[in-house]
Amino acid sequence: MYASSENLPVFVSMALAGAGFLVTYTIIPAFRDMFLKANRYGIDQSKRTKEKIPESQGVLCGAVYLIIMFLFIPVPFYKYLSHDNLDKFPHHEFVDFITALLSICCMIFLGFADDVLDLRWRHKLLLPTMATLPLLMVYFVNIDSTTIIVPKPLRGVFGHDVDLGVIYYLYMGMLAVFCTNAINILAGVNGLECGQSLIIAISVVVFNLLELNGQFADTHTFSLYFMLPYIGVSSALLFYNWYPSKVFVGDTFCYFSGMTFAVVAILGHFSKTMLLFFIPQVLNFLYSMPQIFLFVPCPRHRLPRYNASTDQVGMSLSTFKTKELHPLGSLFLKTLSIFGLVHLRSGIGEDGEYSECNNLTIINLMLKIFGPMHERSLVMSLLSIQILCSGVAFLIRYPLAWVFYDI
Amino acid sequence: MYASSENLPVFVSMALAGAGFLVTYTIIPAFRDMFLKANRYGIDQSKRTKEKIPESQGVLCGAVYLIIMFLFIPVPFYKYLSHDNLDKFPHHEFVDFITALLSICCMIFLGFADDVLDLRWRHKLLLPTMATLPLLMVYFVNIDSTTIIVPKPLRGVFGHDVDLGVIYYLYMGMLAVFCTNAINILAGVNGLECGQSLIIAISVVVFNLLELNGQFADTHTFSLYFMLPYIGVSSALLFYNWYPSKVFVGDTFCYFSGMTFAVVAILGHFSKTMLLFFIPQVLNFLYSMPQIFLFVPCPRHRLPRYNASTDQVGMSLSTFKTKELHPLGSLFLKTLSIFGLVHLRSGIGEDGEYSECNNLTIINLMLKIFGPMHERSLVMSLLSIQILCSGVAFLIRYPLAWVFYDI
Repeated sequence: MYASSENLPVFVSMALAGAGFLVTYTIIPAFRDMFLKANRYGIDQSKRTKEKIPESQGVLCGAVYLIIMFLFIPVPFYKYLSHDNLDKFPHHEFVDFITALLSICCMIFLGFADDVLDLRWRHKLLLPTMATLPLLMVYFVNIDSTTIIVPKPLRGVFGHDVDLGVIYYLYMGMLAVFCTNAINILAGVNGLECGQSLIIAISVVVFNLLELNGQFADTHTFSLYFMLPYIGVSSALLFYNWYPSKVFVGDTFCYFSGMTFAVVAILGHFSKTMLLFFIPQVLNFLYSMPQIFLFVPCPRHRLPRYNASTDQVGMSLSTFKTKELHPLGSLFLKTLSIFGLVHLRSGIGEDGEYSECNNLTIINLMLKIFGPMHERSLVMSLLSIQILCSGVAFLIRYPLAWVFYDI
Repeated sequence: MYASSENLPVFVSMALAGAGFLVTYTIIPAFRDMFLKANRYGIDQSKRTKEKIPESQGVLCGAVYLIIMFLFIPVPFYKYLSHDNLDKFPHHEFVDFITALLSICCMIFLGFADDVLDLRWRHKLLLPTMATLPLLMVYFVNIDSTTIIVPKPLRGVFGHDVDLGVIYYLYMGMLAVFCTNAINILAGVNGLECGQSLIIAISVVVFNLLELNGQFADTHTFSLYFMLPYIGVSSALLFYNWYPSKVFVGDTFCYFSGMTFAVVAILGHFSKTMLLFFIPQVLNFLYSMPQIFLFVPCPRHRLPRYNASTDQVGMSLSTFKTKELHPLGSLFLKTLSIFGLVHLRSGIGEDGEYSECNNLTIINLMLKIFGPMHERSLVMSLLSIQILCSGVAFLIRYPLAWVFYDI
């Protein structure tokens, strides 16, 4: 479907990814003073030094990405740009490309606005939904396949396939909201947002390459066009964001990354596979739910607690009046504590009226299980899990899929 | 060409413009504290009170505009959205629409980044150029008419028409840069940025309506889809930005406005007429050139000087060593002063080594000619000139055009 079964545009995309790396690598230090002057900085809570660290650097990453992609626009269509072939120009493919960029550009803008203005939760849910609308419209016009193949064990009930109709569009809209926020809540440790996103991106590229000779080669080529420059600019950011961070990535980066993944998943029609690469984020979201929905009190920040004397981080705690805990929260915490999956201690405080639990992120869970550790070890462990899960994802996607589908 | 010769989408667009007005009108006060908390505020230099005034409110305007336009996307294409007609879907028109939104979204983002980070001049020129690239690509694919009709008096030399080729693309790229910056440098008085943009937008709408029965009805309908919601959100902003300003519009608004005008001018193929609506901005740009290109020293801000005792504003001055003035600057100032078009005084300072001139904006020129006046009178005069120039533009576009073209 996409304008080229040849490799030239992919090579150009790789070259632009390299250029994106170099430009991002160069401008991050060059913009440092501008960010500090504009009050766009934070203090690293898990360090002994309290120096000012530029925030929201995802905005530089995103801006370079957009420029690269704008320059790349004609490349996949180069064959049609001579006057003889212009009447055969594949507008439907072109519109996919432009719409994907519109959704990504919109999210970079919203992410930066969020960083600067500190938006409320309702905006964080509403705005990505809005940014997905053009994408869904294009999906409707260009693809409009809302039929899913039912896994074999369930075919007795549902038949071979089910047309989900509107529900499928809701699912895609929610996918974008999920991707942007899931990366955003697995954060707070040097290099983690950027590291996890890069591992997801690389996994997607591997998946695309494996499928390049398959039935849907064109959509996987399309995905590569977006993923390769993404990897370029994000690796440069990771270079500065790695422990000890010289810059912070900001919500901008999480929004930018999440939407880029959602875009290729939706238009590439591999949203289920994409979710497989998000296993740690899905687990973190599920584990976080009691705090997100306020069944368990949620402090403003849930990052691990830094111990300056040992230079290590340990789990951070949420403390609350035992009596005032929501019954669902209580049920959740007690069930998990049976399996050792949460730190829960009651009867603390002067009158023994208080309880405490670790903040419900897989980062704190990790620290609960393995005890306090150095921040670099923590991020390495979390990223190793991310890589491991990508391995599992490929196992599910390939050898195991035959159990559930005829492929 | 555009999907409807009927009026339904235009009515929907009008309704959405109304909704855009109401939403913008509602959220500007609601976001006030968020902007103050985020240090996004300024102090009005031309007021006795020194209260904090939220800055960059164009970002709210722009965000509401994008949401409206995203919701509007399916409307012009509603006839094609049934499964029977989907194969006739006009992708080339759809791509125009999406690309226009991409360029506008990109500029809102860059404008906000400029407000927050205070970007350098080279970014202000580079980034709008980048944001125009998708637009030029679409122009190439969908229209690619780079031929201009030569005005009759010049046909002896150039013939009936000339194909400008690449030069025409350069011209369009520069148009976007010009539109965004021209509004930005005619600023600094309560309500001026917003007022001038609204007058331009209304002029464009009148022009579109006059052309609705003409040969290019579709492109003028397309322009209406963008201009009507623009007028909706901008009027709400003007309500708060009018003297005495409760909010400032910021670079975001100028970028957003400029790009919206450039987009409809380019894709609507009426860039020359658009420039006619920019006469005051063109004059201001020409008059500013010696300071923009630093032939005459340019202070950081060129806004009029406030006199708290009279509550009036007068022209602001640039002072410099007479000997160090660039020869071109000197020539320019002396020539203009002969016609009374600049205030120029030499031999000032202790040793008489210094000279002064008014800062080169038509705002200061106005104050040079008519003397100090109240800020509200100043903005009213400037906007009256803008309206007058729109009248002149229509005169040139219609009755006078027959002198130069066969129409």
